[in-house]
Amino acid sequence: MQISKFMTPEIIFGNQSLGQIGESLRRLGATRVFLVSDPGVENAGWIEQIIHYLQQQNLDYVLWTQITANPKDYEVHAGVAEYRLKECNAILGVGGGSAIDAAKAIALLGTNEGHIVDYEGVDKIRHPLPPMVMVPTTAGSGSEVSQFSIIVDSARKVKMAIISKSLIPDIAIIDPQTLMTKDQQLTANTGMDVLTHAIESYVSLAATPLTEVHSLQAMRLIAKHLRPSVASCYNADAKHAMAMASLQAGIAFSNAILGAVHAMSHQLGGFLDAPHGEVNAILLPYVLEYNYLAVPEKYRHIAECLGENTSGLSLRDSSRLALKAVKDLARDLDIPESLSAIGLQPDQIEWLSTHALQDVCMATNPRDMTVNDVAAIFRQAL
Amino acid sequence: MQISKFMTPEIIFGNQSLGQIGESLRRLGATRVFLVSDPGVENAGWIEQIIHYLQQQNLDYVLWTQITANPKDYEVHAGVAEYRLKECNAILGVGGGSAIDAAKAIALLGTNEGHIVDYEGVDKIRHPLPPMVMVPTTAGSGSEVSQFSIIVDSARKVKMAIISKSLIPDIAIIDPQTLMTKDQQLTANTGMDVLTHAIESYVSLAATPLTEVHSLQAMRLIAKHLRPSVASCYNADAKHAMAMASLQAGIAFSNAILGAVHAMSHQLGGFLDAPHGEVNAILLPYVLEYNYLAVPEKYRHIAECLGENTSGLSLRDSSRLALKAVKDLARDLDIPESLSAIGLQPDQIEWLSTHALQDVCMATNPRDMTVNDVAAIFRQAL
Ligand SMILES: [Fe+2]
Ligand SMILES: [Fe+2]
Repeated sequence: MQISKFMTPEIIFGNQSLGQIGESLRRLGATRVFLVSDPGVENAGWIEQIIHYLQQQNLDYVLWTQITANPKDYEVHAGVAEYRLKECNAILGVGGGSAIDAAKAIALLGTNEGHIVDYEGVDKIRHPLPPMVMVPTTAGSGSEVSQFSIIVDSARKVKMAIISKSLIPDIAIIDPQTLMTKDQQLTANTGMDVLTHAIESYVSLAATPLTEVHSLQAMRLIAKHLRPSVASCYNADAKHAMAMASLQAGIAFSNAILGAVHAMSHQLGGFLDAPHGEVNAILLPYVLEYNYLAVPEKYRHIAECLGENTSGLSLRDSSRLALKAVKDLARDLDIPESLSAIGLQPDQIEWLSTHALQDVCMATNPRDMTVNDVAAIFRQAL
Repeated sequence: MQISKFMTPEIIFGNQSLGQIGESLRRLGATRVFLVSDPGVENAGWIEQIIHYLQQQNLDYVLWTQITANPKDYEVHAGVAEYRLKECNAILGVGGGSAIDAAKAIALLGTNEGHIVDYEGVDKIRHPLPPMVMVPTTAGSGSEVSQFSIIVDSARKVKMAIISKSLIPDIAIIDPQTLMTKDQQLTANTGMDVLTHAIESYVSLAATPLTEVHSLQAMRLIAKHLRPSVASCYNADAKHAMAMASLQAGIAFSNAILGAVHAMSHQLGGFLDAPHGEVNAILLPYVLEYNYLAVPEKYRHIAECLGENTSGLSLRDSSRLALKAVKDLARDLDIPESLSAIGLQPDQIEWLSTHALQDVCMATNPRDMTVNDVAAIFRQAL
């Protein structure tokens, strides 16, 4: 019964909610907006529409799309230089987790001095950030509601987790219609990332009743809607549900933190520049198998929320159904079962395991891990 | 699939979390704190402890306890005059819903001109409020997380609902230990108010998946912990659970609004100065019976969360169990079944019904109501 904390941004959710971007920034006092996105989102046509909404509110803007997946420290610094040069006073991030994490890091350095690596870890931020509005276009990262920004330290080739309440945006605007421009593979990978957020936050040592309800609801939505969402980009109901699942999982993990899947995938993302959703999707079943021992009762709830029938089963049998449900889903979505698909070499495992053990997400994993335990999972997944 | 909004304060929850009051106010920039409470809370010893925490952070304070149940407009104005005279720059509310609603109304007029009645209704507030930290000492009102302040217009003898995002406190600090000084009747009445928040927010026309998970979790906690919480003021587990139920119901209703029970009880509170929790507890079963027609499926979920066994039953039979569960609970807690206990006279019903129909909470009630429908419920409950 320790003290727990819970915080979310103001959330605006629904089809056509993109139309509230301009008004939201205006309300926060913005006059010149630094709009951070990536070329993919721009090509899908969303930026053009959003700029229209900014202009309707007579807001100046500077568009910045020099962001890659697994955003790098030097990209953040280039963005900050432009933010300052153009004298912007608010940040609008539009895109997947990479664009939003980069936007948050740019906001951080907009009002705080130094290099982005100075802020790695928990609660290192001194000064309040500029107003931030975040608009996710993948049902995935949850970064639009979280207190995380994950940036690659290019010198060390590691992903740094920067964690602070200051990184929670002022307003998150989630328009499920933006999900219709994702392809099947991206929908599957980001959907499995959402499932990973839901499960890791639920079994986290820092889970609370306030976060658990959101974790479990995200699982129910994923069980029902991820398959049809992957199958058709025109399925508006499925997109709506997956956007809600991503939001609820984001609220949960921002406050309950994550676990070993993310601790391990952060290293692969930093070292091999591997796509976050895909790496998580591959690692999830292996880590789930390892963590089972810690929280069998929670696994039974996971199984039930994922649609398994546990009636009449023992605790052990019903909790093991959580593993089955996740593996079935991964198979249905053609998730690869091996990390060699993304280029992992056996001789890299020791380095990756050492770093994974130091990742901030490892601290809330429900089962203790040594470096050998981490390495064993990497080897199983190889 | 319309656009929905969701917002909560920063939440700090747990035994001993009172110790974070000083630091929280300091973090918001407070130097002289206007501490709004009521004599009951002061007598229980909580104020002395809280003042100690303020002093530890070198915060000046002004204590203001001239607040009654169903706080009146003139009490708010007297408080504002003192707030300004003493040049305070932050508000700390400690107590039940009355103290916290009064504290929020004082904050409102701390930075906005005019009379409190000018702000009745939705979104009338122009200027940002001073920093607000709210500390509930009854598991009841949910006001510490809500965008509501309910103040009696003494001229008209009606309760005004003032609704605005600006009324959401910056930080809510919930320490379940404060619940141990409530007597059995207050615990029962405020507990039934929490149940009313959970149910009305769940069946509200403005409910969303984000609010529904909190409504349902509040019901599960109430079903399991309200009886033992009433039975013993030393049952720490039950107090902890009821504090969490109140918080989750508060998050839900702040964003999904309420329904006919509150629309009707606001009138009785304003007209007869009747205790909010008790009036809601009496009205809830009658309104539940009326609303049943609108949302049978939601009633089945309510029944399940309240611990009823619905397996093998038809939708109608299982949904009707929601009514049984609520009536059983009210009977177990010795809630009166009639409003004449609080002094309602038959000739007052017409006036009360007309005003209830205009209450902002009526707009989200799931079943349509005419003035005759409202009057019929008042008469049943007489
Ligand atoms: Fe993730
Ligand atoms: Fe209430």
